[in-house]
Formats: sequence, structure tokens, C-alpha cells
Amino acid sequence: MSVKIALLGFGTVASGVPFLLKENTEKIVQAAQAEIEIAKVLVKDDAEKERLWVAGHNYPFVTNIDEIIQDPEIEIVVELMGRIEPAKTFITRALEAGKHVVTANKDLLAVHGGELRTLAEKQGLALYYEAAVAGGIPILRTLVNSLASDRVTRILGVLNGTSNFMLTKMVDEGWTYDQALKTAQELGYAESDPTNDVEGIDAAYKAVILSQFAFGMAIDFESVAHKGISNITPEDVAVAQKLGYVIKLVGDVQETPSGIAAEVSPTFLPKEHPLASVNGVMNAVFVESIGIGESMYYGPGAGQKPTATSVMADIVRIARRLKEKTVGKAFNEFSRPLKLALPEDVKSEYYFSINTADRSGMMLQLAEIFNSEEISFKQILQQAADGKQARLVIVTHTMSKTQLENVTKKLAGAADVDVLNIFKVLGE
Amino acid sequence: MSVKIALLGFGTVASGVPFLLKENTEKIVQAAQAEIEIAKVLVKDDAEKERLWVAGHNYPFVTNIDEIIQDPEIEIVVELMGRIEPAKTFITRALEAGKHVVTANKDLLAVHGGELRTLAEKQGLALYYEAAVAGGIPILRTLVNSLASDRVTRILGVLNGTSNFMLTKMVDEGWTYDQALKTAQELGYAESDPTNDVEGIDAAYKAVILSQFAFGMAIDFESVAHKGISNITPEDVAVAQKLGYVIKLVGDVQETPSGIAAEVSPTFLPKEHPLASVNGVMNAVFVESIGIGESMYYGPGAGQKPTATSVMADIVRIARRLKEKTVGKAFNEFSRPLKLALPEDVKSEYYFSINTADRSGMMLQLAEIFNSEEISFKQILQQAADGKQARLVIVTHTMSKTQLENVTKKLAGAADVDVLNIFKVLGE
Repeated sequence: MSVKIALLGFGTVASGVPFLLKENTEKIVQAAQAEIEIAKVLVKDDAEKERLWVAGHNYPFVTNIDEIIQDPEIEIVVELMGRIEPAKTFITRALEAGKHVVTANKDLLAVHGGELRTLAEKQGLALYYEAAVAGGIPILRTLVNSLASDRVTRILGVLNGTSNFMLTKMVDEGWTYDQALKTAQELGYAESDPTNDVEGIDAAYKAVILSQFAFGMAIDFESVAHKGISNITPEDVAVAQKLGYVIKLVGDVQETPSGIAAEVSPTFLPKEHPLASVNGVMNAVFVESIGIGESMYYGPGAGQKPTATSVMADIVRIARRLKEKTVGKAFNEFSRPLKLALPEDVKSEYYFSINTADRSGMMLQLAEIFNSEEISFKQILQQAADGKQARLVIVTHTMSKTQLENVTKKLAGAADVDVLNIFKVLGE
Repeated sequence: MSVKIALLGFGTVASGVPFLLKENTEKIVQAAQAEIEIAKVLVKDDAEKERLWVAGHNYPFVTNIDEIIQDPEIEIVVELMGRIEPAKTFITRALEAGKHVVTANKDLLAVHGGELRTLAEKQGLALYYEAAVAGGIPILRTLVNSLASDRVTRILGVLNGTSNFMLTKMVDEGWTYDQALKTAQELGYAESDPTNDVEGIDAAYKAVILSQFAFGMAIDFESVAHKGISNITPEDVAVAQKLGYVIKLVGDVQETPSGIAAEVSPTFLPKEHPLASVNGVMNAVFVESIGIGESMYYGPGAGQKPTATSVMADIVRIARRLKEKTVGKAFNEFSRPLKLALPEDVKSEYYFSINTADRSGMMLQLAEIFNSEEISFKQILQQAADGKQARLVIVTHTMSKTQLENVTKKLAGAADVDVLNIFKVLGE
């Protein structure tokens, strides 16, 4: 018996699928209890078809999605085109036609996932997307299966390889943001428009999906605050090191007494924290839970073979469930009503980098501002006073988002005070 | 509908099961699609029963295994007594009586796993043991599900929390082995007879189980070479640091052209390697594979709640499969004939710490010995020559086990040469 699949798109990731099918045939057949056959591959046009044939790819390429949707033999549609459209339409049509779907499309799932999941459920079909979060790291299925009896209290993730590569260079080599971006673009890690990667948008998509699996709550993408790495200066990096921290772009989803809070922001991690040594393009998801305690899942966040491996794991799972006649179980069944945390419940330490006039009384003025919000200092570092300007770095004790907002406003209104950067600090 | 389980033993780990059932009721019921009920708990004798009642544990305690085996309502037997007997007999009887089994007993599985798995398969019953390897780290199920389409080429694991705690203290604080052992015993991490932990036996049990899941091969415990940490000196630790390494007790299973090789040994890890920063009682499993590339799974290797979480994940899985009527699928289905690697195919760099007479010509003599086996040097460090004795540290380039054996013999036969220690070095 063989299970016929169709690939939508034949880019980098998709071409990893036949690689795995060929290299690991025996093991895949053992796990799936069926052979997996690539029956059709959707490409853009005849020119692409031609190009792929010339390059030696001997698949039945088609250029019209109908040839896949209307083919009753195809049981699984594997969407690897990315972006919202036409992926959304094609997945919807596949589900409507009774086909199981595997996708790696985090943008789509983060924004329209609810709709697609509802359709799949209504149809009794599988919609799996392990590859959508942290590419090669099997974090979603692990949350479903192995943390089924556990309760997650917080998830911290280095979820974007591009920005992590850049930050690693900024920390290890002292590069500026611009130097790091240029190299990332030259190496093909960053696109010409790097916004999604460097502004935390890509990581925020992943945080949306992680929230569903870890907390059972379907948070809206708009409710995930995101802040990128573009304003991190070499001075911030140097001060972080001096104080025993490493700066990473961290996706953070936690449950507070009032609900969950999700955000992506540059974060000072104590250098002993397991996430602090996740370098280069690697990703990692650090899970805090009441059962296991602390666990971390580390691996490549992108790339042809890692992503294809996650995609293939989904395909194998569906094939096996077809065999067992239990297909249709939702990828993630953990579901609770969404409750968003109140700002006063979301707490952290913070780093403030501030320029002030270099005159007496400035420290008193700042201390009064922080004190008026009941925020106390953990560490203070005065740097580079030149008679005109002084640079002051403050790490606070734990405060809430409400306090943060209030103090930020007051600092913005204070004379001779210029807040350069505010970053979250993970307490030890 | 509720699924009735029986616990064999009510020690540390077992008491974590009711904790999770109580704290995570809703999520567990959602995942299992059934309530899980602790129907009976086997304890040693009336005295223990009395003691547990007084301590407020209100379970139907029994002291005779027959009361569980003969109870037709009990569907899952959870063995948490440890050691070989009577655990083996009880599990065998439970399987013969048609009950599914969950256990955390690595000793038993490493030595008698084949027999028990065959019985479970014959009976069409589940025998799950996620907690047997690296306690709270969900590595076994991840290898089964998420690496189903991948091919593992090597597994490196920090698999024993006790020895890792000790080594961390030896590295970070400069403690001797004896100091570290004493503290580990005071903290309850090491038993009064620490042999299994410090001599690599416990880690070797886990390597046996990992070999089955990662490579599909049922290697015998006797085929896993194991070497412990008791002869590591402060000098070894210091030299490792100077050369850019961290010493860890590492379980290493790899596939070579001729077959698989498994061993547990103190290993010099480059300090940038993800395993090098796994400290204290934490465990981690680092997986090299052709699909994902490099991934790591990190978490607590032992402890009440982490281990109970893995046990509960198994129970939930079985309950769900009972509901779906697909129970009986083997925990690990990946199976190939066992092939052991030839010594000449098992290759590594090595560290030699050698005392020699402090006279001219010694270096030449050593160089000739290594050269005669075609082993070349990567790093040489001469230390502490006092006119009588010189201490020499050599890190070699890659050599095979055959070369290692030959050169070790020649060094043992050489005049004025005393080999203090030989450790494996993971290349960069």
C-alpha cells in the first residue's frame, strides 16, 4: 500500500522531502506502515517545470492546482509555498476536497490558523505543521505528547535564526547592527527586506503557535507585542557583557494569574541560562513547567533538510493514522478560553540606558522618578561623563508592565533626560 | 469513562503521579479522553501501608501483587520499584494477565528489555518507558515520532545527573573527586555505594535503550564499554580548561560503516559544544542526524516530578490508544539486525596524560611509539618537569580503537613511561 502525496511548491524545503524519502526509505516505511509516494508537484509555470526537469527532477509537475485537488488518489497535500496567498486558498480547497494537509507556513497559521483548524476539524482531517515553529526542532509534537500531563508556566524561545546570527556576531565580534545585517544578507540568511526577521515579526508568528500548544490559548497575532533588534547598539552589547548577560531576541509567553502574556523583545539573559549559549542560526525553546521543571529543545530553526524532516514526520504520522483508521485527531487538542494577562501581572526586571546632562542633581532626579513608581534599582553603571553628557545604565528589580509604562512616560517628560534603550532582563 | 491504574511502589517518583493527576486534571482528561484513576497501590508490608496512611496518602494500598494482577478492572500497571526483582516478575505477570505496563526501570529494560518487549508484543499490549532514559527529558518518544523520517548517525548524552553534578563541581570549583562525591552523598544525589553512577553503569543502561530507539539495534549491555569518572584528577580538569575543553561523562552511540559502537566514558568536549554547558544534575541528549543535523534535548535527568511527568505521558498515551482502540503498538518499532562496529571503524581524538623520566630523549621515545602506530599529535603540553619526572599531555589527531589499543600496549611496555589517564576528545 502506498500513500500518495502532492507537494505545493518545489523550493528549498520541498526538495528535502524526496531526499529523506530516498535516504530513509526503510525506516519511513516501518514508521508509516506504508510507502510514501510523491504523486504530483505543483509549480508556478511551464518555465519552472522545464527548469526542474533539466535539473534532473523527475516528478509529475503540474501548474494547475485543480489537477491535485481533483485527483482522488492524493491523500495528503503538503504546502511549502509560504506567505498567505495562494497558500490559504489552496489549503482550504484541499481540506474541502477531503485531503489531509501538512504545511510549514507560520505566517498563515499565525494569522488564519483558527479558520483552517476549524475547517480541518469539521472535515475530520489532519492539519499538521511541526515545521512552522523552529524548523527542525520537534517542539510542537513534544508539547502535545510528552507534556500532555504537565502544565507549562512559561516558554522562552530563540525563535529567529537570522536575528540570532546577527546578535551572535554583535556579541562575539563586536559588530554593529548594520555590519551584521550586511553579512547576514550576503550569506543568504536575511532577505533584502529583513523586516520580518529583525523586527521580531517572524518570532511573534511562532509565539502565537507556541501559545496554542503550550497554554491551549489561541492568542491573536496583534496581541503579541514585538520589538526588534535594530536599535541595539554596541554599547548595549558591551554593558550586557559587563553585567553578566547576553542579549538575545526572545519570544516569551507566560501565564500570569490573570491570563497569558506573549511578546518578542531583545532580552538580557544571564550568561548561565541555557538559552544564552544558543548561537548563530540555531534556535531553541526553553520550557518552564510544574512537572518537568526546566527543559530545552535545541536545533536548527530553518534550512532545507531540518525543515523537511519535520514536514516528513507529519506526513509519516498521517500515513500511520490512515493505516490505523484514527486520522483526523487535531494536531493540538489542548484548548482553553483565551485570557490575556493584565499589564500589572506581567513582571520583569528591565535595563534602561539613559543619556543625561552631566550636572549635579541628575541622579537625584532620576531616582525620584523611579521611586515615584516604586521601582528599585538592582545595578547602576555610570559611563562616559564628558562634562556635557553622562550615560547611565540602570537595571531595575522586578516591576510590572504598568510600572514600566508609567516610568517610561515620566522619563520622556523629564528635562535633560534621553532614554536610549529599554530592554527586558531575565532574573536569575 | 475512567482508566484504572495500579502503582507498584510508592516512593519518590510514584508520589509525583497523584500530584500531576490533581494539578493537571483538565489537561490530562483532554489528552487521554478519559479520567485516570489510581485504583491500587502496591507497598511492601503493613508497616509501610500504615506509615503512608498516617502521612495522609489515602490510596487503596495492597501488599500482595495478586490483588492487582487478578483485578480485571485495572488496565495499566505502573512499575516504579526499580531494580531487577521483583520488578521483572511483577511486570511479566501483569503482561501475562493482559495489562499494559509503564515503567521507569532502566536497569531492567537494559538487561531484560528484549524478553519483556517480546511478551508485550505477543500479548498485543503496550510497554512504555519514557522515564527510563534521562528522567524528565522526552527523548524516547521524540526519537520515535519526530525523527521517524530522519536517520541518526550519532547520539551523545550527558545521561547521569550524579556524576555530572560531581564533574561540574570539579570543573567550576576545582574540587577533587573525593570532595565532590562526599557532597553529592550529603545532598542525596549519590548513594552510599555510588558505583552505578560514577562508574558509568547507569549511563550505559541508558545507552542501551537509546541505541534501540535511535539506531533500531538491540545492543547488549555487555557490549557497551563503560569507564567512570573516579580517576579524573584536578590536573586533568585544569589541562582540559587550558586547552579549551570541559570534561563530561558522555554516553556515545554512533553508527560506523561496519555497525554501531556504544560506550560511556569521560570525554573532553570543546567548550562551545552545546553539551559542554549542561551543568549540575541536568541531563541532555545531543543527536546528530542526516535530516535535522544537530539537535539537543535538555532537562532534569531524575527527580520526583520530572520522572512522574514522563510516566504520566506514557499513561495518557495508553489511555488515549485504549479509547482509539489502537493500543498495543510497540513503544519503539524501529528495528534492524544488530551489527557491532569493528574497532578499526571507531575513531576519535584522544588525550594522554603521561609521566616520564625528566631526561633527554624521552620525547623522541614517545614520538616514535605514537609514530609507529601512525598516530599524529594535535597538541602537546609539557608540565612540571622537576629534574626527575616530567608530566606530558598529548592530544592526538583522530585514531581508531585498534590504534588506541596498540599504542596503549606499547606505552605500557616502555621504560620510564607511566600513562596516568587516557580520555576521549570530541573533535571540533
